[in-house]
Amino acid sequence: MQHNFEPSIYYNNFGSYEPVLTIVSGDSVTTSTADAFGNGRSGEPVAKRSNPLTGPFFVEGAEPGDQLVVHLQNIFPNRDHGYTMSGIAPHIVDGDFVNELPERSIMKWSVDIDDGTATLFDEFAQPSHLTVSLDPMLGCIGVAPERGQAISTATSGQYGGNMDYRLVTPGATILLPVFMPGALFFVGDGHAIQGDGEIVGTGIEISMDVTFSIELRKIVNAHWPRMETDSHIIALGNARPLDQALQHSTTELVTWLCSDYGYDVRGASHLLGQALEYDIGNVFDPAYTVAAKIAKKLIT
Amino acid sequence: MQHNFEPSIYYNNFGSYEPVLTIVSGDSVTTSTADAFGNGRSGEPVAKRSNPLTGPFFVEGAEPGDQLVVHLQNIFPNRDHGYTMSGIAPHIVDGDFVNELPERSIMKWSVDIDDGTATLFDEFAQPSHLTVSLDPMLGCIGVAPERGQAISTATSGQYGGNMDYRLVTPGATILLPVFMPGALFFVGDGHAIQGDGEIVGTGIEISMDVTFSIELRKIVNAHWPRMETDSHIIALGNARPLDQALQHSTTELVTWLCSDYGYDVRGASHLLGQALEYDIGNVFDPAYTVAAKIAKKLIT
Amino acid sequence: MQHNFEPSIYYNNFGSYEPVLTIVSGDSVTTSTADAFGNGRSGEPVAKRSNPLTGPFFVEGAEPGDQLVVHLQNIFPNRDHGYTMSGIAPHIVDGDFVNELPERSIMKWSVDIDDGTATLFDEFAQPSHLTVSLDPMLGCIGVAPERGQAISTATSGQYGGNMDYRLVTPGATILLPVFMPGALFFVGDGHAIQGDGEIVGTGIEISMDVTFSIELRKIVNAHWPRMETDSHIIALGNARPLDQALQHSTTELVTWLCSDYGYDVRGASHLLGQALEYDIGNVFDPAYTVAAKIAKKLIT
Amino acid sequence: MQHNFEPSIYYNNFGSYEPVLTIVSGDSVTTSTADAFGNGRSGEPVAKRSNPLTGPFFVEGAEPGDQLVVHLQNIFPNRDHGYTMSGIAPHIVDGDFVNELPERSIMKWSVDIDDGTATLFDEFAQPSHLTVSLDPMLGCIGVAPERGQAISTATSGQYGGNMDYRLVTPGATILLPVFMPGALFFVGDGHAIQGDGEIVGTGIEISMDVTFSIELRKIVNAHWPRMETDSHIIALGNARPLDQALQHSTTELVTWLCSDYGYDVRGASHLLGQALEYDIGNVFDPAYTVAAKIAKKLIT
Repeated sequence: MQHNFEPSIYYNNFGSYEPVLTIVSGDSVTTSTADAFGNGRSGEPVAKRSNPLTGPFFVEGAEPGDQLVVHLQNIFPNRDHGYTMSGIAPHIVDGDFVNELPERSIMKWSVDIDDGTATLFDEFAQPSHLTVSLDPMLGCIGVAPERGQAISTATSGQYGGNMDYRLVTPGATILLPVFMPGALFFVGDGHAIQGDGEIVGTGIEISMDVTFSIELRKIVNAHWPRMETDSHIIALGNARPLDQALQHSTTELVTWLCSDYGYDVRGASHLLGQALEYDIGNVFDPAYTVAAKIAKKLIT
Repeated sequence: MQHNFEPSIYYNNFGSYEPVLTIVSGDSVTTSTADAFGNGRSGEPVAKRSNPLTGPFFVEGAEPGDQLVVHLQNIFPNRDHGYTMSGIAPHIVDGDFVNELPERSIMKWSVDIDDGTATLFDEFAQPSHLTVSLDPMLGCIGVAPERGQAISTATSGQYGGNMDYRLVTPGATILLPVFMPGALFFVGDGHAIQGDGEIVGTGIEISMDVTFSIELRKIVNAHWPRMETDSHIIALGNARPLDQALQHSTTELVTWLCSDYGYDVRGASHLLGQALEYDIGNVFDPAYTVAAKIAKKLIT
Repeated sequence: MQHNFEPSIYYNNFGSYEPVLTIVSGDSVTTSTADAFGNGRSGEPVAKRSNPLTGPFFVEGAEPGDQLVVHLQNIFPNRDHGYTMSGIAPHIVDGDFVNELPERSIMKWSVDIDDGTATLFDEFAQPSHLTVSLDPMLGCIGVAPERGQAISTATSGQYGGNMDYRLVTPGATILLPVFMPGALFFVGDGHAIQGDGEIVGTGIEISMDVTFSIELRKIVNAHWPRMETDSHIIALGNARPLDQALQHSTTELVTWLCSDYGYDVRGASHLLGQALEYDIGNVFDPAYTVAAKIAKKLIT
Repeated sequence: MQHNFEPSIYYNNFGSYEPVLTIVSGDSVTTSTADAFGNGRSGEPVAKRSNPLTGPFFVEGAEPGDQLVVHLQNIFPNRDHGYTMSGIAPHIVDGDFVNELPERSIMKWSVDIDDGTATLFDEFAQPSHLTVSLDPMLGCIGVAPERGQAISTATSGQYGGNMDYRLVTPGATILLPVFMPGALFFVGDGHAIQGDGEIVGTGIEISMDVTFSIELRKIVNAHWPRMETDSHIIALGNARPLDQALQHSTTELVTWLCSDYGYDVRGASHLLGQALEYDIGNVFDPAYTVAAKIAKKLIT
């Protein structure tokens, strides 16, 4: 079934809130997200900052230990402007370079949806003009965390959350472990584009039209968000410091290769030692995100 | 001038040792490297483990504060087999997964230079056969460290070293800060291929034929190794933990954009926030390596 | 006013739950806590594991930005046995030592309240007998986190939480920032004694009798839990990795010296550079805890 | 035998340099150290900055795998003034607090040896006067590192080095693993006093009179510097980040309890879980230092 859902309520935590819509495995949903500052498609405030979420969507029959398979069919800006912060965050540069950083203030970009570009004019910067191509993604995607927790959209964990990973784009599939009955799926924090690490603390923050479909999978061996793209399978780990996020993602990828692709740990070590790829999702949020990837062509 | 240099002495530290050859800016050198275990092209030991270096090459006129521009013209295996370790290193997985890891022992791969592939047969692994395409690179590349230090080829620093970054391939240019008179350039630790992170502690360790040319550049503002490929400029940071390696690489890339590409820090923040790419070099060695990259097409 | 409160409901998150008791500034409360496994004074289960909390206590008039001043008057075991885990956690030793660690299972200690000692007999350990002196403390102490979050008692943050800091003992005063109306104060996770770092993941987990009094202070400049003992003022930081917990605690101590003790940052640097003391609270939980301390005799 | 050795040459690396004196097990040496800036007892420069070392002392018969037992008999300032830096280092506070820090410049303290105090007057600080009691210690103590390395006195490792741990005081014994023939022992970087962490990057840097005696112990199971004080045995770990320094120190203390005190890992876990103490040596240098301690009264 295809649902059209227009949000009227937004949450700023991933938590076990009253569902806004109930769906069944196989359904797809077309909806929208406000930007990280709470502004909607009109550019006017519709929600509280920061990172208001659309959802939760209750998936019939989802139980702790299951996995949601979320196909991201469309993620696209629904207005003509977005926002970034102006300076690299201090914890991302050397301590003795912090004094060189510009003040952090909000910058407005114009977004040309037809051209597929975003442009900034900043008279105080060298150069004063910057144009980049759109590459729309969702910063926040996840489910309600375990044990009835309600955790700020500033951060992320095994339930997903504010991972700010730039491969969360249309065409990708994200697989989320289920911790609470109904899974309680959320999306939000769209970026017209974002660099690795989200080092200024934002992508180009913009409201989005979003379409996804969800299947429910009855498995029990996944502990972290996973993804599939055309070319790769990807395991995500969220933690501070980066070293620990990397440990989580690596362990999860090994576990996945062993459960689904015919590897044992020794065989996975041989493969990953010579062919593993890592992406850095974000190094800005309270939990950082690392993606451990292996090319599908090497494992199938 | 073109030099052909066959090494007869190998060092296991990056340090201010007696030069094996003196060259001038513009010269190229064809030489070879032993593998990380000290075995040469014959497969027999020619040097002490681990990571014996070819060099140092003294560059006439190089002074502290200068930069060596090293064009990597050829890096290619010169024998038919290489070695890896069998298991992921314990500090790269979750603590409670360490007991699942296989013992770490040496594995022999056959290397087919004509086909451009490497193949492992390991009867104790699932699957027991693995074939990967060659993508030759150098794990160790660098100069003598500052203040007369002599530092093990296990690790890396501002002088380069054992960075184990898989874009150190033929066609790339690496730019190294000079700390000691003559720079004292070294190469070693060739890998037929290596995954991101070098998570088993090795690439496919193999002896190599290597050709490079060196130009001397009189600049003073570089603090870390930098690279240029066809598509990107890249700044490298070497440190533990990953967070700090990332801080070094990010700071160095911002500095570089400001000195050479017409950016100020504010402009560089706008660009990198939305277009920066990070690679993880290694997470095995005492110092980890992170690469901060920006596409050339965005900055020129 | 003196309240006697016997808990009948326990929460496993720090969150904005319905208060169990409302008090006013100056009141004291005598109550009890279940142990980390949910067992009460009888030794029988009274709550869900792990780290069930007594509370929340609503403090009349407490508003975000205020500070709770909690005087810990009594914390003492109310039964004759406690529990620990048997092995050091894997992430606290070198990666290549993990395989040497014993399995983690629950150990029962007998506690002699009159003698003030706890004794373990473990036939599988060398030595098989161990006796330590009691030094009772609370692992969990805190308030409801900001923005309506509900966060597991596994971890900690600016609101306090599961800090597992062994100076949270009778006689100490803990000062907690208020994030939600009424503050919503909780206690739990008593330890008969605990080493620095809580490296086995537990102290001697035991149910406690607890008496505290609370004053409300209308201040706005505290961001982290603070403490006062007879000899020291102490600022706590909770985060991973240790480096970040240490940054938080150091920054908070400097801020405190500047707001309350007549220092500027330069003067605080001179003092702390030569006289600062650090304690490590825990290195087991998702957020680690570092305490930055300065002797009162040096600042007053 | 008692040696009186007045240094005339100083090294700025821990390395395999020509010995300045050869001693035998049981000998004691009275010597002096220049301060971290290279100034001697006269206050005038006698060596290059930073952290010039007195030594190396060659210990007859010392072989790799042995252990030097160094009794620190006297460490005391030999002049009337010392130096510190004026501001906390940026990487030790929160990123958004770095802009609050004062510039880092050198401050001169007057040292009253008879009173046992050091006093700073800084008209730009609040308060402008600060007096602290002397607690003399050595920042640098160690041997030549393995494999002929020569490593800057900025940092530390398994060989000791610039650990900046404030319990390296008169009366303490430090036990150092031997990596090179003769051990090649060095001392330097005296501090009239230093806070935990060395957060301004210095103690009160001062030249010292130093007396130590050395015994040679033929053991093979120590991997890191160890210490004994009247009350504790202590294992040191040097690395970044703090988490890793802590892993090294904890592992070394467990190993030590097992080899010398009748514990197995399970028994050591029971003890350390409830009675371990940690100190933070430094969080300023390239390698941080953590000390894992256990009270002697609990283990003997």
